[in-house]
Amino acid sequence: MKIGIIGAGSIGLLFASYLSKTFEVNLYTRTVEQAADINQYGILIKKGSEQSIAIVNACPVREWAGLDDFTIIAVKQYQLQSIIETIRFQSMVCENFLFLQNGMGHLKWLENIPAKNLFVGTVEHGALKEGSNVVYHNGVGITNAAVLKGKIEPLRHFSDLTPKEFPILVKKDYREMMVNKLIVNAVINPLTAILGVKNGALIQNQYYYKVLVNLFLEICNILGLENQEIYLEQVLKICQNTANNRSSMLKDIEAGRLTEIEAILGYLLDEAAKQKKHTPQIEIIYYLIKGKEQDERGDHL
Amino acid sequence: MKIGIIGAGSIGLLFASYLSKTFEVNLYTRTVEQAADINQYGILIKKGSEQSIAIVNACPVREWAGLDDFTIIAVKQYQLQSIIETIRFQSMVCENFLFLQNGMGHLKWLENIPAKNLFVGTVEHGALKEGSNVVYHNGVGITNAAVLKGKIEPLRHFSDLTPKEFPILVKKDYREMMVNKLIVNAVINPLTAILGVKNGALIQNQYYYKVLVNLFLEICNILGLENQEIYLEQVLKICQNTANNRSSMLKDIEAGRLTEIEAILGYLLDEAAKQKKHTPQIEIIYYLIKGKEQDERGDHL
Repeated sequence: MKIGIIGAGSIGLLFASYLSKTFEVNLYTRTVEQAADINQYGILIKKGSEQSIAIVNACPVREWAGLDDFTIIAVKQYQLQSIIETIRFQSMVCENFLFLQNGMGHLKWLENIPAKNLFVGTVEHGALKEGSNVVYHNGVGITNAAVLKGKIEPLRHFSDLTPKEFPILVKKDYREMMVNKLIVNAVINPLTAILGVKNGALIQNQYYYKVLVNLFLEICNILGLENQEIYLEQVLKICQNTANNRSSMLKDIEAGRLTEIEAILGYLLDEAAKQKKHTPQIEIIYYLIKGKEQDERGDHL
Repeated sequence: MKIGIIGAGSIGLLFASYLSKTFEVNLYTRTVEQAADINQYGILIKKGSEQSIAIVNACPVREWAGLDDFTIIAVKQYQLQSIIETIRFQSMVCENFLFLQNGMGHLKWLENIPAKNLFVGTVEHGALKEGSNVVYHNGVGITNAAVLKGKIEPLRHFSDLTPKEFPILVKKDYREMMVNKLIVNAVINPLTAILGVKNGALIQNQYYYKVLVNLFLEICNILGLENQEIYLEQVLKICQNTANNRSSMLKDIEAGRLTEIEAILGYLLDEAAKQKKHTPQIEIIYYLIKGKEQDERGDHL
């Protein structure tokens, strides 16, 4: 079974490394240089004090021809639209696509993809790209995946064949799975990025905690969630378990990269607008991040 | 005419320096050491490349006996309550008090002061305390003052005698005067302190500008203001004129000092509660600052 992975950022490199243990992996990179590095040296994967080399085939994404049996899309949501165009206008063999983007705003874009089976996934690993062919697996977690369109069997088959230390859990309800991740991302990521604090600060500082809860309640209202206390408990547990981590959005802001704010709070604002609901807190947090993003990227007006 | 000034922070030192040109000034400090420094060396006041020494009498505030003709209270709002207790239980000669605190939450505390004439003022100077007897006058502005209780004549008399380069403008309506300053402080100070940016960023960054306007509108709603566009224009003008300045709240946060957030947004939240109005944006900004204050001061839970 041939696995194609589009995108060789931290998540793409992580998936390529682990999946190469049980599959033949083709990794599609943005640049020719990165593909060359990976082909020459393999992917160096670090975990704690251990490290190993994974051998995969890499080539630039413009050479992608949709010939793999199962294709994983591991780009950020804001890079997804050009990939979708590529997929749409490719005469493909590949019938199975798994999308690993954060947020939920991209789900509507996936409708136009002519493939047979579309899956979506949420990644709970921590990974840091340390070089074009180096990835640091700094948080061991799981990957959840569910059917968005088509049959579940190919996903189950893929899941069965993945290495045990890198499990893919097949979920029944894609929406519930994605809402779960969205809430966590929508609360922890933007607040830590605005405040410049580690995840734990949101529960250790009584005032930040108050902001967290207020924002959480506004988000629940948009998503129409019952059992809010279960979701809140989950957010708090993640703050606790990752207390010493810097969220991906904080790291993006500090590095002057685009953040996933559109995929996360942008999606919630769109939903709020559709429902004609007023969401002043989501809005203020959204604009603070958009502003910081612009500031750090240095493209002032 | 003897002027007493209680508090020898940046504003106290600034007032003492300028007023010593036309008045006999007694400056009351928190510590014995600061009074000794000022008595020995005078106050060094810097303005651009110029500098000069002002000679004033200093003594610790616990020796204050209310013997001056006109007393200016130049402590921060959060230090005011202990000063008020001192004033209340002092058998005073002084009939005239001018309070220079930011915010409006302290107005209700002033009702208990048994003095004949109570004045309030808003300071539009920029000043930085650079040492126990050194102040940098980095923004030349004016001081507004108005009657809170009693007669206007003593205030006019004081104003007439102040040096021309340090004008005190007597205003008719204390509330309008203070609301003006409050709005400016409530919008510019907390946002710049959360974002860690200079005042100009709030109008140069389109997203920060959006946050500014949304917060401004919520504040206007609490204060029941008509002619909102005039107030907004004023806020924007100040962002422009002080584009390269770091707000006092930003400096307080960075230095791990208490901020004036209670006096400013705390007051507005109290007003909102009285009016049973929902103010989610003021609230989120208030708690973000309270949290940062706690974080920077290092007194975590």
